[in-house]
Amino acid sequence: MQDQTFSYQTLFDFTKSIFKNLGFTGSDTELATTVLLSADLRGVDSHGIARLIGYARLIEAGRANPTPEIKVVYETPSTATVDGDKGLGLVVAPFAMQVAIEKAKQAGTGWVSVKNSNHFGIAGYHAMMALKQDMIGIAMTNASALVAPTFSVERMLGTNPICVAVPGGEQPPFVADMATTTAANGKLEILQRKNQDTPVGWVQNKNGKSTTDAHALKNGGALLPLGSDKEHGSHKGYALGAIVDIFSAVLSGANYGPWVPPFPAYVPMPQNMPGEGIGHFFGAMRIDAFRPAAEFKKNMDQWLTRFRNAKPMDESQPVLVPGDPEREMEKQRLQYGIPLHPDVVRELTALSKKLDVPFPVHNLQC
Amino acid sequence: MQDQTFSYQTLFDFTKSIFKNLGFTGSDTELATTVLLSADLRGVDSHGIARLIGYARLIEAGRANPTPEIKVVYETPSTATVDGDKGLGLVVAPFAMQVAIEKAKQAGTGWVSVKNSNHFGIAGYHAMMALKQDMIGIAMTNASALVAPTFSVERMLGTNPICVAVPGGEQPPFVADMATTTAANGKLEILQRKNQDTPVGWVQNKNGKSTTDAHALKNGGALLPLGSDKEHGSHKGYALGAIVDIFSAVLSGANYGPWVPPFPAYVPMPQNMPGEGIGHFFGAMRIDAFRPAAEFKKNMDQWLTRFRNAKPMDESQPVLVPGDPEREMEKQRLQYGIPLHPDVVRELTALSKKLDVPFPVHNLQC
Repeated sequence: MQDQTFSYQTLFDFTKSIFKNLGFTGSDTELATTVLLSADLRGVDSHGIARLIGYARLIEAGRANPTPEIKVVYETPSTATVDGDKGLGLVVAPFAMQVAIEKAKQAGTGWVSVKNSNHFGIAGYHAMMALKQDMIGIAMTNASALVAPTFSVERMLGTNPICVAVPGGEQPPFVADMATTTAANGKLEILQRKNQDTPVGWVQNKNGKSTTDAHALKNGGALLPLGSDKEHGSHKGYALGAIVDIFSAVLSGANYGPWVPPFPAYVPMPQNMPGEGIGHFFGAMRIDAFRPAAEFKKNMDQWLTRFRNAKPMDESQPVLVPGDPEREMEKQRLQYGIPLHPDVVRELTALSKKLDVPFPVHNLQC
Repeated sequence: MQDQTFSYQTLFDFTKSIFKNLGFTGSDTELATTVLLSADLRGVDSHGIARLIGYARLIEAGRANPTPEIKVVYETPSTATVDGDKGLGLVVAPFAMQVAIEKAKQAGTGWVSVKNSNHFGIAGYHAMMALKQDMIGIAMTNASALVAPTFSVERMLGTNPICVAVPGGEQPPFVADMATTTAANGKLEILQRKNQDTPVGWVQNKNGKSTTDAHALKNGGALLPLGSDKEHGSHKGYALGAIVDIFSAVLSGANYGPWVPPFPAYVPMPQNMPGEGIGHFFGAMRIDAFRPAAEFKKNMDQWLTRFRNAKPMDESQPVLVPGDPEREMEKQRLQYGIPLHPDVVRELTALSKKLDVPFPVHNLQC
């Protein structure tokens, strides 16, 4: 079966109705929808509407709260710790990022660690909130353990993404949004679905040996940190994932390492959890906290232009600045629609029946 | 010829005399020495006393200032921009990191961008300054361009290291200090000296093709970002190096990308440089700006213990926490001395004759 393509507005209306049906109220309904679908617009299909059924399961199981009272529980002039009250990260994260932005307005920078939250969609949405304020935005989150540290066979870290967004002047911004693994789990899932092998260096088996079996994780294997093996710097990818874990969860009082709760509500929770929920970390830095904004933007535009015009290996593939492919994808998908895999359409149709929210027929061609 | 081994104190006294002879005054002489030799103690041989002759050349050529007036030129409650007055990063960086620490005492966190500096030794020294204050320390620097972005044949970024240091309670700290490339340039230099091939994935040739020629950089090739190639996430390593470049130099007004001045004083400076000197970026976050320090330390100790005890692939190689090998090396070298390669001994002997500072005979066995 082929992908089916839907307009952004169609999926937006459907998703909003689902969240409303799940008990979301007020502006949270629209916010959760906007954040979730920003992943589909930017081409991060694994983190968008395909996860809606997973979020619904978390709420049904009582592991996530559709009406959280999110609040600052600890603060200094440039920092805060936020308790997400078991809300979805889709609404907890924008709250926390806004606190970081407000702190930055006063103190130059703002840094917010979050506990008692759930998955927050793509890091990019939250970091990019800073751009329109002439701030650099930073967002990261821990996640349940799929990744083995260098020398280990044990899954100890999540894919723990980091996003850093930097405003340009006239040039489009720099937006690096990346898992700290060699390959994002979403890419692995695509190969699993097609029953295809992975490249060498993405996963290891339960004994820690390199494998190309896309199903290795189901058999006790693990994703590999960025760098893949010691000789190619996997200890650096491991360190990056660890930094995300510590900033997101040890600073806030969330769960860390192997104790991070799993996303699928049907997977049992870890034993002896040391904290509350999953953790995130956000930063906002005013560019004019370091030098006049106009000077920064002039240099940043030169930086962006120079890198976009770096000499390519092959004239048909220009050098990209982080964020360029996602921005191009967003333009395309707003205009031509969002393609959904038949498995996703089937799952959403089932969810629609279960919650009695009509699922739209697809109304666009690929 | 074999390595010759010297006690830390012997090399300290020699290096201090060299810096004094080069015009360093007051406490800067001892500070530059301490920072430089911290690399040798921690086993980062490429960044320690082996670079002394390079620093001397920068000063002789007038490209570095032995008596800089380092100052804060711009600030907010949680940020500052520091002008290094062409000083060596060995003294500029500790000044800037101290500013970050003082800001953090008041505002919860402190963030300092630095322009008009030179190479600062190892990032680890500066980040670790935060540890004894119960703060998380962050240090990064840009460097002259050796690294090609994904899809490019052009050298656009330095090896741009990042260090993040996190205090434990009773456990030794987490200290991740890493170049954002697959392999540090120092590792490449070792293979060049031995005329040995590199592993696949460290370097590319002038056409952007993968090569194992350790001398490829001399012939227009480039180091590869962490991840090595697109399929293994080199765009993430490129993004990390770019973030370091932007935070260190676009925020401060230093040179960035291909305009960063080269370390060897005999290499001509780039044309049309947009800023002043090279740039660094530092951060300090009080752990009790997020939660009571005792709670943080209790969780951090559990984190450190759990990761050090993760199940290894091979019982003879335990899983490490970033910073463990360097801390062990420092213990060893303080006790048994620091081995220097014969080429380094020869260069230091020449420097000693030129500046009329006696070079010690090696006084220890390997």
